[in-house]
Amino acid sequence: MTTTEQKPERTESEFDRGIALRRREDDARTYDGDLDGGWKVGEGINGGLLLALAGNALRQTFLDDDHPDPISVSAYYLSASRAGAATLHTDVVRRGRTMSTGTVALCQPDDAGQPVERVRALATYGDLTSLPEQVHTTAAAPVLPDPERCIGTDLAPPDFRANAPLLDRFDLRLDPDTVGWALGKPSGRGRIQGWLRLADGREPDPLSLLLALDALPPVTFDLGLPGWAPTLELTAHVRAVPAPGWLKVVHATRNYAGGLLEEDAEVWDSTGRLVAQSRQLARAPRP
Amino acid sequence: MTTTEQKPERTESEFDRGIALRRREDDARTYDGDLDGGWKVGEGINGGLLLALAGNALRQTFLDDDHPDPISVSAYYLSASRAGAATLHTDVVRRGRTMSTGTVALCQPDDAGQPVERVRALATYGDLTSLPEQVHTTAAAPVLPDPERCIGTDLAPPDFRANAPLLDRFDLRLDPDTVGWALGKPSGRGRIQGWLRLADGREPDPLSLLLALDALPPVTFDLGLPGWAPTLELTAHVRAVPAPGWLKVVHATRNYAGGLLEEDAEVWDSTGRLVAQSRQLARAPRP
Repeated sequence: MTTTEQKPERTESEFDRGIALRRREDDARTYDGDLDGGWKVGEGINGGLLLALAGNALRQTFLDDDHPDPISVSAYYLSASRAGAATLHTDVVRRGRTMSTGTVALCQPDDAGQPVERVRALATYGDLTSLPEQVHTTAAAPVLPDPERCIGTDLAPPDFRANAPLLDRFDLRLDPDTVGWALGKPSGRGRIQGWLRLADGREPDPLSLLLALDALPPVTFDLGLPGWAPTLELTAHVRAVPAPGWLKVVHATRNYAGGLLEEDAEVWDSTGRLVAQSRQLARAPRP
Repeated sequence: MTTTEQKPERTESEFDRGIALRRREDDARTYDGDLDGGWKVGEGINGGLLLALAGNALRQTFLDDDHPDPISVSAYYLSASRAGAATLHTDVVRRGRTMSTGTVALCQPDDAGQPVERVRALATYGDLTSLPEQVHTTAAAPVLPDPERCIGTDLAPPDFRANAPLLDRFDLRLDPDTVGWALGKPSGRGRIQGWLRLADGREPDPLSLLLALDALPPVTFDLGLPGWAPTLELTAHVRAVPAPGWLKVVHATRNYAGGLLEEDAEVWDSTGRLVAQSRQLARAPRP
């Protein structure tokens, strides 16, 4: 196969390397990428990184339509991704005047070399900078202590960190009021919130918001359920280009039932704007 | 083309007729249906009915896998549907042990007879009756006055009703506390809630919950924005088989900005269980 390296559009960073793609010269709808083990959590690659990688394939697809930004992305997680090569097949559903819609299938070879689909996503792209300026939101940003008074994940137990190498990629400061679970005292409210930025200083943009929406520990920790909660489906809405600086991230659940739970996430930028929202359906860890 | 009528699985009703499908004998992945003008709201067919119709095509697809129920359905609305014939093309993404994933494209012919895609959906199906019984939800059902003390849509102005024939298909009783907009006094909270059942007495099931999630007037009415808010994307999570009887439905928004808004819906059954949740991204009506 022949490929064209897609030039990173900003300073090289761990995140930009993580979502880098090579478009095939003999098949312009197909991209190759690499899943770095540094984004692992448990046995698989973090779902937010996969979402951003799939999101980047559709960004490349719709760049020439002036629809570079994810507006809504729905990702269905089909099997656990491993570190290693990944192939992304894109397909255009509709090219519109203000928005375009497409699909992407993220695949990896199995042990016999046969492609196995990891993630299928359906998404609508547009230009966030072209949206009207008005903001009439009734949502309120979470009230958090200053980052230096929050709990860094560098304080997490070594075995916890060893199981989640992606934590090293984040500067994550959790609200002390929502980390009782780390001390064996989960609140039972199903809420975790904190400050987030990329450890290497890379500033947020619409694609990194897709990562931020699935970056915090699962809210099931706060329900007293240890173990990771595999995502079945996650839909992200990116609502504005984020300002530089810290992000505030909130994860919460209200309906844990039948072995499944929804997890809602919000990301607020440093100007206090609600820049991204998501809801996911996840399998609860076995109690 | 040759077709096989899919027998309705329950008493014939307006809703069952609305989602009826004929599988093509020469292409088992394709179904034909008819969009009845009685489901119109404004110029188009109600998005919830389209969701249920698309959902029925995937239900037929996964019946033989014992995965008859929608667990998560993400629908992207591409163009306004009209009354008339519709064709649904399904595709299986993955058949799994406990859940299966597929896509469906709902198309209609344009004036020249060329197919135009109206809705593309990506969804995961399973068996709701096989999920564990436990419920640890922290969500609380809305507190509503009894149905007879709520506001029936039969009291809406005639021109409003003429523009939304689908209202005749529902017995919808809105909480008087959330209908100030009908009297020119929207609360600005962005919340509408009420009781819902099908007018012909057809009891709820997982497919009709997809309709219920998009049945109420848009919450933008309660923000003082008249006009319909076209859905760009809607993801529904069906969490349990609903009990017979009235449903409680809540629609709310928190983030109206940049000409877009998210709208969250919850459906509670007559036993007080949260049986379905959804979030949609919609275009706000022009102020």
